[in-house]
Amino acid sequence: MTEIAKGLEGVLFTESKLTFINGTEGILTHLGIPIQEWAENSTFEELSYALLHAKLPSAAELAKFDAELRANRELPAKLVEEIASFPANVHPMQALRTAASYLGLFDPQAEETSEGARYAISIRMIAQFSTMIAAIARARRGEAIVAPRADLTHAANFLYMLRGEEPTPEQARLFDIALVLHADHGMNASTFTAIATSSTLSDMYSCMVSAIGALKGPLHGGANEAVMDMLDEVGTPDKAAEYINGKLDRKEKIMGVGHRVYKNFDPRSRVLRDYAEHVANQQGKSNYYQILETIEKTVIDRIGSKGIYPNVDFYSGTVYSDLGIPKEFFTPIFALARISGWCASVIEYTRDNRLLRPDAVYTGATDQHYVDLKDRQ
Amino acid sequence: MTEIAKGLEGVLFTESKLTFINGTEGILTHLGIPIQEWAENSTFEELSYALLHAKLPSAAELAKFDAELRANRELPAKLVEEIASFPANVHPMQALRTAASYLGLFDPQAEETSEGARYAISIRMIAQFSTMIAAIARARRGEAIVAPRADLTHAANFLYMLRGEEPTPEQARLFDIALVLHADHGMNASTFTAIATSSTLSDMYSCMVSAIGALKGPLHGGANEAVMDMLDEVGTPDKAAEYINGKLDRKEKIMGVGHRVYKNFDPRSRVLRDYAEHVANQQGKSNYYQILETIEKTVIDRIGSKGIYPNVDFYSGTVYSDLGIPKEFFTPIFALARISGWCASVIEYTRDNRLLRPDAVYTGATDQHYVDLKDRQ
Repeated sequence: MTEIAKGLEGVLFTESKLTFINGTEGILTHLGIPIQEWAENSTFEELSYALLHAKLPSAAELAKFDAELRANRELPAKLVEEIASFPANVHPMQALRTAASYLGLFDPQAEETSEGARYAISIRMIAQFSTMIAAIARARRGEAIVAPRADLTHAANFLYMLRGEEPTPEQARLFDIALVLHADHGMNASTFTAIATSSTLSDMYSCMVSAIGALKGPLHGGANEAVMDMLDEVGTPDKAAEYINGKLDRKEKIMGVGHRVYKNFDPRSRVLRDYAEHVANQQGKSNYYQILETIEKTVIDRIGSKGIYPNVDFYSGTVYSDLGIPKEFFTPIFALARISGWCASVIEYTRDNRLLRPDAVYTGATDQHYVDLKDRQ
Repeated sequence: MTEIAKGLEGVLFTESKLTFINGTEGILTHLGIPIQEWAENSTFEELSYALLHAKLPSAAELAKFDAELRANRELPAKLVEEIASFPANVHPMQALRTAASYLGLFDPQAEETSEGARYAISIRMIAQFSTMIAAIARARRGEAIVAPRADLTHAANFLYMLRGEEPTPEQARLFDIALVLHADHGMNASTFTAIATSSTLSDMYSCMVSAIGALKGPLHGGANEAVMDMLDEVGTPDKAAEYINGKLDRKEKIMGVGHRVYKNFDPRSRVLRDYAEHVANQQGKSNYYQILETIEKTVIDRIGSKGIYPNVDFYSGTVYSDLGIPKEFFTPIFALARISGWCASVIEYTRDNRLLRPDAVYTGATDQHYVDLKDRQ
C-alpha cells in the first residue's frame, strides 16, 4: 500500500513508438531499426526527422527538412550579443540554459502549443542549439563568434562554427555518428523532465530549458567529462593498466564503465569504438586513445564477465577531444544531439497528455499546532 | 505487467515530512500544522524557514532568516538592465524563466550542490524572485523599475516594488496570507519537475528554472488567470447567476471550481475567502468580488453536494486583482510563493536522492531495417 517506487524505477507511465532498449541483450532501436544501422547509414538530420515524425522520410521530405534546418541556423543578433557578454567562465550548461530560455523571447510562436507549432519550433531549436553552443564555446575562450554556414551539414557546420575552420569529411562524419548515437535514449532523466514540464501543457522552450537543467547534473550528462578527467589523471598510456588495476583492486568506481540499463555491451559504445579506431588508424592514435585502449582491455579482461563493460561515455569523450571539442563542452554536445529526442518525446507525449502528479508518502509529524514565537524553545 | 500508471497518479516515489494533504476531508498541513493556523498566525518568511528546515524557527532563527532575506533582495545591476531590455510584451513567465536562469550566471555559488549551498542559494532566490517579478511587471508596462526596500516585509516590499507605493498594512497582510497559502502543496507538477531536475544532482538554479517552466503550463499555474478571464466575460454582478447557470446547464467546465485532489472544500480557498470578505467589507466590494459572491452561491447551491466547490484559484485572482496586480502576473505570483516549497522539496529529496527514470511501454515497430533513401516509397 505504501510501497515506494524509488527513482520511479520500473514504473511505466506512458507508451512510446520511438525507442526500444533491451539492456540485457544490448539492443537499442529507433522505429524498430537497430542503432548500428542508423549510425552506419543515416545522418543526424534524418534521424531527427524520423523521431519527430515516427517514420523514415521520403527523399523529398528529408530534403525539405534539411533545408529548413539550414535556413534556421542564425540566432537573433541580440542573443549573439548576450552570449558574447555572459560573465567570464560561466558554466557552459548554465549559459546554454539561459541562452535557450532567451531564444524563446524572440520567437513570436513561442507560446503556441499546437502540434504544428511544436514541430516548427523543434526545427528552429535543433538548428539554433548548434549555433548557440558553438557561440558559447567561442565567447568563453574570448574568440569571435563564428556565424553559421548554410552549405554545410548539421555536424560539419557545428565543427566549423566551433573551431573557425571546416572539418575534414572524416571528422564531420565521425561527429555526425556521435550525434546519431546520442539523439534519443528512451525515458532518460532529461527527456522525462522535458515531459514533466510539457505535461502541464507548457511551451516547447520551457520543456527544453528544463531538459537542459536535468542533463546538466553529474548523474546524467556529465559522465563523459568525468571520463576525460580520468584520462587526464592517468596521464600517459604506460600508466593506464596500473591505474585501472588499482581502482579495481580497491573496488572503486571507474568512470564510463557499466550502465544502469545495459548489462551487456552498450551497442552505442561498440559503434563509436569502431569508428574511433578507424579514425585513429588513419590519423594516428592520440595519447587519449592509447590510454583508452589499455583501460578497455584491462576492464574487459577483469570484469567483462560480470556484464560490466565500457559504455558510450567511455569512447565519446576521446572522440570529442580528438575532434577539438573542449572537455567542458561535452555535456552541451550531448544536448546538441538529444534535443531531437526531447522534442520528439514531448510531441509524442502531448498527443495523449496527462498531467504528471505522483505522490510522496508523508512521514512527518501529525496533529501539530502553531506555537507562538514567544512560547518556543 | 504492462500496466501503465498514467500521469503517475497514485504512484509513490519518495517520502516527505513537509506537507500532508487529505483531499477527501479537505485537510492541508505543513509540518503537521493545519494551513488555517499558518495563515492566521504566521508569515511567508516563517513558513519558508519552516519548510526549508522542517521545523518552526526560534525567535532568533527567524530574525536571522528574515534579515538574510532582506539583505539579498537586490539584483545584479546587469540583470536589471536585461529585464528592462526584454522584448516588449514578452510572456511574464518566459521573462521570469529567463531572468531566473540569468541570475544563476552571477552567483559564484551556483554550481555548488552541498546542502549548505542549496540552502544559501534558496534564501537568495526567495528574496530575488520577488524583485525579478516586480521588475518584469514594471518593465512590461514601460515603467521604471523600483529598487527593493529592506525595511518592509517580504509581502509589503513586493507590493511596494510592483506598484511604486507602499501598501496599507491590511493589503500587505492579505498578500502575505496569499503567499502562505501557496507556499507548498506536496508533489504538484512544478515541484515534481524541480525534483526530476535535481535527481541528476543538478544545481538549484536549474531546478527552479525547470519548475517555472512546468508552472507556466495552463494545466498548472494558469488557473486563476482563467478565473479572471471568466469574471471579465461575465462583466457585471447582475449577469453572474445567469452566466453560471447556463454553464452548468450545458455541463461546461467552470474555471476555479473543483480540484483534482480536494473532493471537499479546498481549505486554502476557505481561508482566502474569509480574508477577502473581510477586506471587501472594509474597503467596499469590488465589481469582481460581487461577481465572485454570486458565482460561489450558485455553484455551491447547484453542485456543492457533489463535492465540487470553488478552489483556491477562484478567490486568489480576485484578491490579487483588488491588490492591483495585473492578471498576467498571477502565475509569476504563484512562483513567488511556491519557490519556498520548490527549494525545500529539492533539499529534502537530495538528502536521499535517486535518479528519476521511469519507463515507457514500447508500442512501435519491431524488427525493422534501414531502407536506402532511393528505395523508399
